[in-house]
Amino acid sequence: MADSEKDPLTYKEAGVDIDAGNKAVRLIAPLAQSTFDSKVLSDIGAFSGLYSLTSLDYKDPVLVSSTDGVGTKLRVAILADRHNTVGIDLVAMSVNDILAQGARPLFFLDYLAMGVVVPEKVASLVSGVVNGCRQAGCALLGGETAEMPGFYPKEDYDLAGFAVGIVERESIIDGSNIALGHEIIGIPSSGLHSNGYSLVRRIIFDELGLSVDSPLLDSTVGEILLTPTRIYAAPVLAALKRYPISGIVHVTGGGLLENIPRVLPVGCRATLRSDRWQPHPIFEFLAKAGRLGPEELYRTFNMGLGLLLMVPPNVTDLVIGILEDFGEEPTVVGRIEQQVGKQKVVIT
Amino acid sequence: MADSEKDPLTYKEAGVDIDAGNKAVRLIAPLAQSTFDSKVLSDIGAFSGLYSLTSLDYKDPVLVSSTDGVGTKLRVAILADRHNTVGIDLVAMSVNDILAQGARPLFFLDYLAMGVVVPEKVASLVSGVVNGCRQAGCALLGGETAEMPGFYPKEDYDLAGFAVGIVERESIIDGSNIALGHEIIGIPSSGLHSNGYSLVRRIIFDELGLSVDSPLLDSTVGEILLTPTRIYAAPVLAALKRYPISGIVHVTGGGLLENIPRVLPVGCRATLRSDRWQPHPIFEFLAKAGRLGPEELYRTFNMGLGLLLMVPPNVTDLVIGILEDFGEEPTVVGRIEQQVGKQKVVIT
Repeated sequence: MADSEKDPLTYKEAGVDIDAGNKAVRLIAPLAQSTFDSKVLSDIGAFSGLYSLTSLDYKDPVLVSSTDGVGTKLRVAILADRHNTVGIDLVAMSVNDILAQGARPLFFLDYLAMGVVVPEKVASLVSGVVNGCRQAGCALLGGETAEMPGFYPKEDYDLAGFAVGIVERESIIDGSNIALGHEIIGIPSSGLHSNGYSLVRRIIFDELGLSVDSPLLDSTVGEILLTPTRIYAAPVLAALKRYPISGIVHVTGGGLLENIPRVLPVGCRATLRSDRWQPHPIFEFLAKAGRLGPEELYRTFNMGLGLLLMVPPNVTDLVIGILEDFGEEPTVVGRIEQQVGKQKVVIT
Repeated sequence: MADSEKDPLTYKEAGVDIDAGNKAVRLIAPLAQSTFDSKVLSDIGAFSGLYSLTSLDYKDPVLVSSTDGVGTKLRVAILADRHNTVGIDLVAMSVNDILAQGARPLFFLDYLAMGVVVPEKVASLVSGVVNGCRQAGCALLGGETAEMPGFYPKEDYDLAGFAVGIVERESIIDGSNIALGHEIIGIPSSGLHSNGYSLVRRIIFDELGLSVDSPLLDSTVGEILLTPTRIYAAPVLAALKRYPISGIVHVTGGGLLENIPRVLPVGCRATLRSDRWQPHPIFEFLAKAGRLGPEELYRTFNMGLGLLLMVPPNVTDLVIGILEDFGEEPTVVGRIEQQVGKQKVVIT
C-alpha cells in the first residue's frame, strides 16, 4: 500500500486540470452563444443543449443526423500550430452529409479530446467550429472538451462533430427520383477538403520531405493542406426550395467512385466527363509525386468536386443560375445513363 | 521529386484500409439495426440517419442534445483487451445528461477513432453501444469509424457519443422548481462510472503497480474499473410521467460538489448526509491508497450516487416506490435548505 507520509494525490496532478477546463468553457461560451437564434433555449440547459421545434412549420418532420471527424488533416494543423480552421472542416463534414438528404441544418455539437487542455487553443479550435456553424446557418448547441492524459500527446487532439437537421418527409432526397437523362451538376471543392490525408501526409511529408512551411504551387504546404472544406448549405438549400433535385452526393471518403453509387437507382450509371471541370492543381501534384493511378485517385480524393446535384435536364440551367447567385461555379459534369447490372461510375 | 521507378503509393499503404472499414460497417450495421423502431427511416439515408417525428404527440416540442466521451476509462478496456462494455458508458454519459433535463432519448450516434481498424474490435465496441442504446430505449441512428494512423497507436482508440432526446417545453426540468424543504433522492451508481479515471489509473497502475488482472476487493482491477455506467432512463422517465420532480442531477465530471449547484436556484443549498448511502468500497480504497482528501474525492468522483432527484416531500415515498419497481435502490440522501449567498453543497 502507499506510504502514508507521501503527499496526497490530486486529479490535477494526474493530468486533469478542472480549472483549465473551466477557463476553456468561459472562453468558448460566448463564441457558441454568438450562433444562437431564438430556437436555442439557453440558460436552462445545465446538462444539455435545448432547441425548440416550435413554429418550425413541418407537416411530417424528419430529423436527419450525421457524425464525422476531420481525420488526419488535424496533423497538418498541429504541425502548423494553426487551429482556427479545422473546426470549419468539422462542421462541413457532417453538415454536407445531412444536406445530401435535403435537410436544413438546425444545430451542431462538437467533441474535442486533447492531451492537455490549453484554454486558448480550445478557443481557437472552437472559433473555427463557430465559423462553420455560421456558414451552415446552424447553432453550436453544445460540446465537450475532454482532457485525456496518456491518450493524446501534449500537442495532439481529436475532433468529432454531430449535426442535426430537419426535412419534410416528402422532400427527403434519397436518389430514388434519379432517372435516365438527368444531368449531374458538380460544385467545385476548395481542394482536398478533409479526405485522404493519411495518403497526402505520406506523400508530402514522408516521400518528399516537405514541411508545412515549404513552398508548394505558388503557396505553401500549410496553406494548401489547411484550406477549409466548403460548406454548401446556403446555395443548395436555396436550389432545393425552388427546383426538383433528384440526387445529392457529398463527395467524401471513398471519393467519386464510392459516393455516387450510394444514391443511384437500379439500372443507372453516372457518366462523368473529366474535361468538364478543372480540379485544384494539388491533385495532379499528388498524383505525380505519389505515382497514384486513376482508380486510387478517384477512390480517395474528391478530385475537384465537393458536391454533386442530379437534376432533370429542363432545370439544369435554373439550378446553375441559383448556385451562381451564391458565388458558386457549378458546371454540368456528366449525366445519368442506362446500366445493365450493378450501379457504377464511368469517368471519361 | 519522387523516383518514377518506385511503386505507386496507395491509401492502404498509407495506413487507411477502406476494405477493413467496409467490413467493419458490414459487421456493425445489423447491430445498429437491432435498435431501430418504426421512427427510423432506414435504407433511405445514404449519408445520414433519418428519424421521423411523426405521431410523436408533443404540443411544444424541444430537442435536447448532449455529447460526451468515455474518458480514460478506455485505457482500462485497452489494457484488459475487453471492448464490449465501454459503449454502455458512452451512451450513459450523454443519455443521463439529457435525462437530467427531463427529456426522453430518441437516438444516439457514435464516433470511433482508432489507429488501425480491426473490424472485430469495432464490432465489439459497437455491441456495447447497442447494449447501452437498448437500456436507454433509443435508436443507434448512425456513427463514424475513423482510421487515423499516426494519431492513435495501433491498439488505441477514442469514442465520442451524441444523444438527442425530446421533451415537452412545459415539462423541461431545469431546477427552477426546486424549493426549500424539497428532499434529495439518491440513486446508487454502479461504482466509478466514467469519471476520474486519470486519477484512478495514477493510483492503481502507477502508485500501486497493479495490473488489470490483479485481485481487488473480492474481484479484479479490470472487473471493478470496467463496471459499466448506469443508465437511468427507464426508471426516471417512469417517475417523471407521474410525479412533480423539481430537479435532476447527473453526477458526472466535477462530482457532487460541482454538479449539484448547476441546478440549485438562488437562496438554496443542498445538504447531504453521507450516512444515508453506502458508496461502493472502491471509493474508500482509492481515498486511502491515493491519500485523497474529501474535497478531492467529492469533486472528482460520484462517491456512490449516480443520479439525484429533487422532489417535494409529499411525493418522496411515491417516487422511491416507482424507482424500486425498476430495481433501483434509492434513498433520501439530503434536502434543500436555505442559503445566504452562492448556492452550494454541504456534506455532513
